Amino acid sequence: MIKKIDHIAVVVKDIEKAVKTYQEMFGFKEVERMAGPSNEFTSVMMANGDMRIELFQPLTKDSAFARFLEEKGGGLHHISFMTDDIVKELANLKAQGRKLQNEEPRQLPNAKIAFVHPSAAENVLIELVQRD
Amino acid sequence: MIKKIDHIAVVVKDIEKAVKTYQEMFGFKEVERMAGPSNEFTSVMMANGDMRIELFQPLTKDSAFARFLEEKGGGLHHISFMTDDIVKELANLKAQGRKLQNEEPRQLPNAKIAFVHPSAAENVLIELVQRD
Repeated sequence: MIKKIDHIAVVVKDIEKAVKTYQEMFGFKEVERMAGPSNEFTSVMMANGDMRIELFQPLTKDSAFARFLEEKGGGLHHISFMTDDIVKELANLKAQGRKLQNEEPRQLPNAKIAFVHPSAAENVLIELVQRD
Repeated sequence: MIKKIDHIAVVVKDIEKAVKTYQEMFGFKEVERMAGPSNEFTSVMMANGDMRIELFQPLTKDSAFARFLEEKGGGLHHISFMTDDIVKELANLKAQGRKLQNEEPRQLPNAKIAFVHPSAAENVLIELVQRD
């Protein structure tokens, strides 16, 4: 079962400008900063109470985030749903015949994540996350 | 101040299929169904605990939702932040020089809403909503 919206992901051209914008406009504050596995992006998690927006700035030309920025000018990229059992969630979706981008969860430093293919959910890219 | 994510809006081609998809995949249930002011779209609010996703299906060719469906194939359309004082929120954004789509809130049957221009927020369309 999914428990809550973990965060909403937004691709941006200039992450320092974006951090400032979401802080000034809506009171979000930077709570975590990460780099992509091959330094292909930098990301900042912004929080305001229970609300969380993760900003991603591509740093190379060949990531999915870079293509999204190039083709769509950035903006809303995916929704992340928190689950307490990502393996069960993926098995459930697979049993329904839903197309997944990751059949197995990927281990990040403090979470397991997997993406559902946008074609399975009305052209919305959905991430499942289980926080360790 | 914004209080929480009121909902995430998704534009879809076939709302009955989308309702079924989000119900089966993630346990969202239909809680409200509405029609656009000139019947140019139909919308369904889906809820699962505190999470809410609003699905929009354009019914005519000339709405913003129809253009979004045509150009991008549907998907994530906007985020809606709940505020308890939309007039103050808009005044604050205006004082910051942020571009707004609606300088005054529009009254819906049970809420006041206003849109911030995507160019103000990193290509993300943001709705402010004050529930009556």
